[in-house]
Amino acid sequence: VERLGTVAIIGVGLIGGSIGRALRARGLAERVIGIGRDQARLDKAKHLGAIDITATDVAQGVKSADVAVVCTPVSRVAADLCAAALAGPSAMLLTDAGSTKQTIVDAVERDERGRTMYVGAHPIAGSERQGAAHARDDLFDGRACVLTPTQNTPPDRVGRARGFWSGLGCRIVEASPEEHDKALALTSHLPHVVAAALTATVPAEMLPLTAGAYRDGTRVASSDAGLWTAIFLQNRDALLHALDTYQTQINDFRLLLTTRDADALREWWESFKARRDLLRESDSSPIAQNTANDLESET
Amino acid sequence: VERLGTVAIIGVGLIGGSIGRALRARGLAERVIGIGRDQARLDKAKHLGAIDITATDVAQGVKSADVAVVCTPVSRVAADLCAAALAGPSAMLLTDAGSTKQTIVDAVERDERGRTMYVGAHPIAGSERQGAAHARDDLFDGRACVLTPTQNTPPDRVGRARGFWSGLGCRIVEASPEEHDKALALTSHLPHVVAAALTATVPAEMLPLTAGAYRDGTRVASSDAGLWTAIFLQNRDALLHALDTYQTQINDFRLLLTTRDADALREWWESFKARRDLLRESDSSPIAQNTANDLESET
Repeated sequence: VERLGTVAIIGVGLIGGSIGRALRARGLAERVIGIGRDQARLDKAKHLGAIDITATDVAQGVKSADVAVVCTPVSRVAADLCAAALAGPSAMLLTDAGSTKQTIVDAVERDERGRTMYVGAHPIAGSERQGAAHARDDLFDGRACVLTPTQNTPPDRVGRARGFWSGLGCRIVEASPEEHDKALALTSHLPHVVAAALTATVPAEMLPLTAGAYRDGTRVASSDAGLWTAIFLQNRDALLHALDTYQTQINDFRLLLTTRDADALREWWESFKARRDLLRESDSSPIAQNTANDLESET
Repeated sequence: VERLGTVAIIGVGLIGGSIGRALRARGLAERVIGIGRDQARLDKAKHLGAIDITATDVAQGVKSADVAVVCTPVSRVAADLCAAALAGPSAMLLTDAGSTKQTIVDAVERDERGRTMYVGAHPIAGSERQGAAHARDDLFDGRACVLTPTQNTPPDRVGRARGFWSGLGCRIVEASPEEHDKALALTSHLPHVVAAALTATVPAEMLPLTAGAYRDGTRVASSDAGLWTAIFLQNRDALLHALDTYQTQINDFRLLLTTRDADALREWWESFKARRDLLRESDSSPIAQNTANDLESET
């Protein structure tokens, strides 16, 4: 891996902070600039070892960057990408870590300068916790990072984006922005809605009678309301479709329970239990790897 | 805590095995007899330190027991309790660990001998894993155990049941069988259905694009299909009601998303996030303890 000069991280929270920590722990960059609006939070991120230098102005922060990566909430990603494109050197690689892609990619591709530098990305890693204080240099180890280049994306930037994200430890998967959003509606956004609805259903006074199923099934309901509301809205159509599919499964279960069909209930459960059992072994089993390769639209 | 003589455990899987390990680790009994149909599994449980003595016949196994605790699948609990009542000494305490209570308690109270010895119990602890190989002597530490005595239950047995289950590390909560089943439909059975439906919704080829929300939200879908089918059927009415309540939450979310109501979506999420945040601190916080006390119908 070729060592990078300056990497600018716009938004130094859990994801941005973890990128900074991974870059520094692996010696991948000469310097890491953290860009944000709140100097105190930037100072804290620097103190925690996530960044080398701080900047509160995007234009100033990216002016000599080899790579600029935007890690702000999805409602701000497109604007931050365009601001970085405007101020950064024309050779800069521009990428992001947003949980939705179609809205963001469309917006940057309408920007004349942005589209010459940008490769959409989504490292599928995170936590219900927020802030650089929870950042980890191994957050991306073995996690999938979906890159969403389009026919307008310069091929050299795709190669550099692969190098940047795989340098942080990610397995690279490529998909169109639309494919990404449809898949993530099922694999991430729906699980968040399900966890939230489950939390909302169980009254607080019953918490002492919960155990592991509730605890694990609701963990991500502790995630930030504003961040997730923005993600849901940006991926509204795909998420509504995912909810339809989920609803069909709940309805199937309900019918079998209403009619007391023991054999069919057991078969329903058995039909997907094997799928979940696979995951128990390892995240990076050969099966998971092969499946990841099948998803790539190009390699 | 007065030391017990002989404790007979009928069904030495994860729960029965953990009771045996806790009794032995804490020196609470002179001997622990494990009763099951499969001698090889009993030998393994003995080798693992969960029991001292094995028996394949319930009548023989319980004949000198001070306590008999039934830990078989819920579809077999009532029959095993009645068999143990028939063969055990009249001073024996009879209890169980079944995840449903109304069906079991009703059946044992129709048994003339069973009702003179029995206190229904449900230690709320477990795992998606099965078998004595996964048993742990700390499985019950700080976990709630719901006792479900009725007006027919001899008061001395209630006291002895409290002593037995609290000796294993449980916090004792009392409730009627009906209250238990309604609460557990929400706190345990619904979370299992939700996890199963989520697993069924996400196709296997998308597993590489899942992260923590999916992993945690689907963990219990690896549980045994037969065990859970039996629990769902025994608690059918309360579970259907819990599914109605859950469905209302999903529908509320869906409407807010369809109408792109960002403020209301954020408020919906915020309204219960605090409830889940509480759980993040600790299972045994003063708040959780106080709430547990509120639930007790008698103490």
